[in-house]
Amino acid sequence: MSGSTFGNCFKITTWGESHGAGVGVVIDGCPAGLSLCEEDVQIYLDRRKPGQSKFATPRKESDTVSILSGVFEGKTTGTPISMMIANENQRSKDYSEIASLYRPGHADYTFDQKYGFRDYRGGGRSSARETAARVAAGAVAAKLLEGFGIRFTTYVKSIGHVSIDPERFDASMIAQNALNMPDALAAQKAQEHLEKCMKKRNSCGGVIECVITGVPAGIGEPVFDKLDACLAKAIFSIGAVKGFEIGSGFEAASSTGLENNDAFFYAKDGRVQKETNHAGGILGGISDGTDIILRAAFKPTPSIGAPQKTVNKNGETINIQIKGRHDPVIVPRAVVVVECMAALTIADLALANMGAKYGSLQDFYL
Amino acid sequence: MSGSTFGNCFKITTWGESHGAGVGVVIDGCPAGLSLCEEDVQIYLDRRKPGQSKFATPRKESDTVSILSGVFEGKTTGTPISMMIANENQRSKDYSEIASLYRPGHADYTFDQKYGFRDYRGGGRSSARETAARVAAGAVAAKLLEGFGIRFTTYVKSIGHVSIDPERFDASMIAQNALNMPDALAAQKAQEHLEKCMKKRNSCGGVIECVITGVPAGIGEPVFDKLDACLAKAIFSIGAVKGFEIGSGFEAASSTGLENNDAFFYAKDGRVQKETNHAGGILGGISDGTDIILRAAFKPTPSIGAPQKTVNKNGETINIQIKGRHDPVIVPRAVVVVECMAALTIADLALANMGAKYGSLQDFYL
Amino acid sequence: MSGSTFGNCFKITTWGESHGAGVGVVIDGCPAGLSLCEEDVQIYLDRRKPGQSKFATPRKESDTVSILSGVFEGKTTGTPISMMIANENQRSKDYSEIASLYRPGHADYTFDQKYGFRDYRGGGRSSARETAARVAAGAVAAKLLEGFGIRFTTYVKSIGHVSIDPERFDASMIAQNALNMPDALAAQKAQEHLEKCMKKRNSCGGVIECVITGVPAGIGEPVFDKLDACLAKAIFSIGAVKGFEIGSGFEAASSTGLENNDAFFYAKDGRVQKETNHAGGILGGISDGTDIILRAAFKPTPSIGAPQKTVNKNGETINIQIKGRHDPVIVPRAVVVVECMAALTIADLALANMGAKYGSLQDFYL
Amino acid sequence: MSGSTFGNCFKITTWGESHGAGVGVVIDGCPAGLSLCEEDVQIYLDRRKPGQSKFATPRKESDTVSILSGVFEGKTTGTPISMMIANENQRSKDYSEIASLYRPGHADYTFDQKYGFRDYRGGGRSSARETAARVAAGAVAAKLLEGFGIRFTTYVKSIGHVSIDPERFDASMIAQNALNMPDALAAQKAQEHLEKCMKKRNSCGGVIECVITGVPAGIGEPVFDKLDACLAKAIFSIGAVKGFEIGSGFEAASSTGLENNDAFFYAKDGRVQKETNHAGGILGGISDGTDIILRAAFKPTPSIGAPQKTVNKNGETINIQIKGRHDPVIVPRAVVVVECMAALTIADLALANMGAKYGSLQDFYL
Repeated sequence: MSGSTFGNCFKITTWGESHGAGVGVVIDGCPAGLSLCEEDVQIYLDRRKPGQSKFATPRKESDTVSILSGVFEGKTTGTPISMMIANENQRSKDYSEIASLYRPGHADYTFDQKYGFRDYRGGGRSSARETAARVAAGAVAAKLLEGFGIRFTTYVKSIGHVSIDPERFDASMIAQNALNMPDALAAQKAQEHLEKCMKKRNSCGGVIECVITGVPAGIGEPVFDKLDACLAKAIFSIGAVKGFEIGSGFEAASSTGLENNDAFFYAKDGRVQKETNHAGGILGGISDGTDIILRAAFKPTPSIGAPQKTVNKNGETINIQIKGRHDPVIVPRAVVVVECMAALTIADLALANMGAKYGSLQDFYL
Repeated sequence: MSGSTFGNCFKITTWGESHGAGVGVVIDGCPAGLSLCEEDVQIYLDRRKPGQSKFATPRKESDTVSILSGVFEGKTTGTPISMMIANENQRSKDYSEIASLYRPGHADYTFDQKYGFRDYRGGGRSSARETAARVAAGAVAAKLLEGFGIRFTTYVKSIGHVSIDPERFDASMIAQNALNMPDALAAQKAQEHLEKCMKKRNSCGGVIECVITGVPAGIGEPVFDKLDACLAKAIFSIGAVKGFEIGSGFEAASSTGLENNDAFFYAKDGRVQKETNHAGGILGGISDGTDIILRAAFKPTPSIGAPQKTVNKNGETINIQIKGRHDPVIVPRAVVVVECMAALTIADLALANMGAKYGSLQDFYL
Repeated sequence: MSGSTFGNCFKITTWGESHGAGVGVVIDGCPAGLSLCEEDVQIYLDRRKPGQSKFATPRKESDTVSILSGVFEGKTTGTPISMMIANENQRSKDYSEIASLYRPGHADYTFDQKYGFRDYRGGGRSSARETAARVAAGAVAAKLLEGFGIRFTTYVKSIGHVSIDPERFDASMIAQNALNMPDALAAQKAQEHLEKCMKKRNSCGGVIECVITGVPAGIGEPVFDKLDACLAKAIFSIGAVKGFEIGSGFEAASSTGLENNDAFFYAKDGRVQKETNHAGGILGGISDGTDIILRAAFKPTPSIGAPQKTVNKNGETINIQIKGRHDPVIVPRAVVVVECMAALTIADLALANMGAKYGSLQDFYL
Repeated sequence: MSGSTFGNCFKITTWGESHGAGVGVVIDGCPAGLSLCEEDVQIYLDRRKPGQSKFATPRKESDTVSILSGVFEGKTTGTPISMMIANENQRSKDYSEIASLYRPGHADYTFDQKYGFRDYRGGGRSSARETAARVAAGAVAAKLLEGFGIRFTTYVKSIGHVSIDPERFDASMIAQNALNMPDALAAQKAQEHLEKCMKKRNSCGGVIECVITGVPAGIGEPVFDKLDACLAKAIFSIGAVKGFEIGSGFEAASSTGLENNDAFFYAKDGRVQKETNHAGGILGGISDGTDIILRAAFKPTPSIGAPQKTVNKNGETINIQIKGRHDPVIVPRAVVVVECMAALTIADLALANMGAKYGSLQDFYL
């Protein structure tokens, strides 16, 4: 069976491993006539690139994308867009010792159990490097959505126990600090926390929040392909995610109907609005025209330099210290991955929604 | 587009509305030769049935399932299993007034925006009644999984701010109280909390937890169809879910790698075990052979009798009090729905996993 | 795995066996707002109904359809349309003797090989009765397509060696004779041929042709989901089909480029036209705006009363004479099945095509 | 929507145009542990390569495949296998004049209608060059099937009116003549016929036949995903195919049940056999254990040097003579494409079939 394809209408298939020739993606179903060039994609990849701060792996990868098909004279043609990001900095020797053991918190053991063996170099297919291909595809989805007014604001909400203060929220700060936090003070505290972690050769988790504005009402399919269900799958398919929320999320579970229901009212422009947005912009699995708000909890990077207990394939329980160049915290680099998975989900369901009304079909064909 | 199908190998398609002829499901891809009768399914439906306590809607529905195809001489034939649960207790008059207004927290507005109109009787397709069809299908999935040792323990973890105490956890209590809580004292406190809510014609949310034992290592596909990602979608497709976690969930985000990594060791029987299970039984999207643990946060029932502000279709902002027979809390009845969606997900991925190794294919055909 | 679902956007799932409770279909993805009632579907089912001439099985089935969901106040709601046709005339005793043997030309042997056993009553799931569910779904697809000018003319082109004469083609004759041939003289000759077959307790094959007018240019997806490829699968999924052609079909293989290419020209109304239509209305897998022409070859009904050699499950090679009520020729009743499968294919691809241009997406959402 | 993906279990996605960077394919779902190297794929691509006889385009392309992912230490890893074939011989100038006109028999007009514009260089995505990616994927499928005894014999059955004589059938001749015919005399006559065509700057069609041995009984899913239906779609998705048959094909339509039914008998080894094989190895959409026989009718190459009438985009009806390097007959090079599409279909359904019996699932997991 296969699991490397996401989406039905705007369908992507990723490929590639940490230490192979590269990683790549094929987008099938992107509408024809969208302006697209490599620079549009590169700016998203640059947000994910390693080596940009002391809180990210010092590996150097230029992560340069090539568009191999599907674009002609600066526009998408409607046929598959194939993109590739070559691997440059492959130090296989770093990984040779992990061939025979199972790192805690990694997929080494489960890949061996599933497939009988694994490409052990740098995590192979389960490496976070795989997300570069998602980001390339997500950049195209985001460009498509931008064309009808949908925009994303994504940031780190917390690192360890350090959370942003909503009162100090400043979106312009997100790109101004190494941790992509929209609160300068929280970013400062989080950096201090991370430095302590790094001294102990330990790592740290965090929460990413994404706010999507401009999504028209009506996107999402009832029952199994609800917008929130599809977002949940999209975000949970990112390696280190352990929790996902829409709107009030887990807080809704301890609130009452009176508190949690969002009252509708007519705004002066005649549009239906809500007084609050506990729903996070989704009712019955369908967008309601207000901001979509989602959060993802990321576990700490499992690769840590501190000593750990584990097993090898010879039947021995052993102690290890993982070497190599790892991110002490994954969330700053994962911000753009969350944004891209959200964009891919909404692009897919926005296309699916075009056939919801018979009248639209008649308008299209008559 | 469509959204009423779930799964690729063990594929289900549900249909039906709150006040139509009934709700139903077609299972396509159930292997041939599984013993199955209506009673196997009915026991699951009975766990979801309304009218069983004062904390559930007093509507009376027998929710009797009929198997219409796919079973011959007591065994599944490998062809589609069609099941139907007729609607009995349709009091359309209860719902006539909601035709022209949008209830807060419901899908009335979004269905109208998406489709141009809606079946307004009892929520139509967005009614929780739709989940009866999922439960019927899930009962078959659970029976199939039981045949190779997979079992589910699902319960209410919290209602409002009342949570179970892990030290008082007693699985035998789950079926002993109206709230399906595995802690008699917490159940008592939660009932008191609910009674207060009901007096105020208010409602309440809660958290459901599901522990799945016996899942062999290797189930789940890398990248987009990770076991946790598929579970996230499955559970988030249940109407009132606003949050989802695996293992440590959101707590992982504030922990460190040293705390969160689960150390492997060899048990006396030679099997690989983990000292802890923060991962919730899944590494890299693939089951690791230990218990799978998931949680879902449910929002409070949006239908409440207390006065609320909303809009009608005539452009007026109005006040309403929702009449009718509603659950003051949805989680006790949703326990079996969560369990069934988890079973459907695992059955689907267990079938998908059969082709993971070339050797298995050769064993099958040679 | 599953095989009872067809289509991606206009998706149908059929269920049911010859001698179970009935056969049915769930349509998911039908746009909202299409006028639909049971009579719309019944007129298609009546074209397929047995017992209407001496050239069809004398079994009496009213084949009355019930719409169980997805229609409200006379219009489709956008949610699944579930339809059921109850089985009435189940004479299981007719079939009891075939439980232990494999009828030549039937699926008895292959079902046993695949699933380990089979529902042997009347062919079970492999019975032609399954096509009633397709016809119910196809009636809805045809109604949808009619709304933007697409129409179907489907008929028997030949029975045995008796073919219609294109010069005597008269569409108004199709419904006037028991064999659905658009040529009264050919119909007469074919009836004589069939009567001879029936005297010998033998059966006969034939060819069905379908001409689809009004299909706009642009429908069909390049590469694997070409319109002709999807039609090929749709038609070949009907039990007895052994050959399929588009346009010139096999004749194209013995012609030259000069003969087979259709010259384009501008018609007086400024539209692009073709001087001929060897392509059958499809170029590069995409409709070109001219008539779509397809043909399907049906094998003779395998159930014949004449003595045949076969095997039973006890390891014996035996002689049998099949009893029961069988169609001496399947093609007249299969005409509406071919038409419905073609309609389902085009409805599905017409919906898929709505997102082909980025401008359409912007028009829809801006 | 998308159309560049084929298969559910053994799923392939192709990309690339005639004059872009190259063509490629991602295989997702190939089981882990299959020995695979580039040479395994290259031998299939070499069978399709242009420039090998005077009956094929003289374009020189080495068509060298690179495996970019999914293979580690000589074995497939179970993760996506990405392969690319770079374009080398791109003479865009040859095609510049076709930008503004619609070649008869080509997809120029329909692509413009569907997408608003097209990559006009060498047919863009609708070029036969796209089939190189299918062949690369098909080589992997064929290698997989070889491992449990499935083998393909594929050849040209006829070119124009020149057909092979079954009595002179000699499989060893297929690779011995430029036309891939298993009958030396027919090959000689066909070459003479083709030379006449070429002198007139005309082209010619033909028929390809494929015989698949060793397919175990049980492959194929009932109803819509019948083995023959899936093969029909697979083969009809090749650009120039206009007709498809299984077993007796169109001849079955003029035969009787007595003639067409294949009598079962027990062979001396106790296996069920058939006296004839009019069914072409498939009953009820499921393989019956005997040879699968299929045929595809290919239209003549539409690109011909002789003068033709057509239209340009300025509203003019014009005369053209197509220049450039084209195949006077496509069938010899298409032999391997047919074989590969058949292999992809059977590999996909062979994987799907592993879950047909509940007992198999228990064997796998217990």
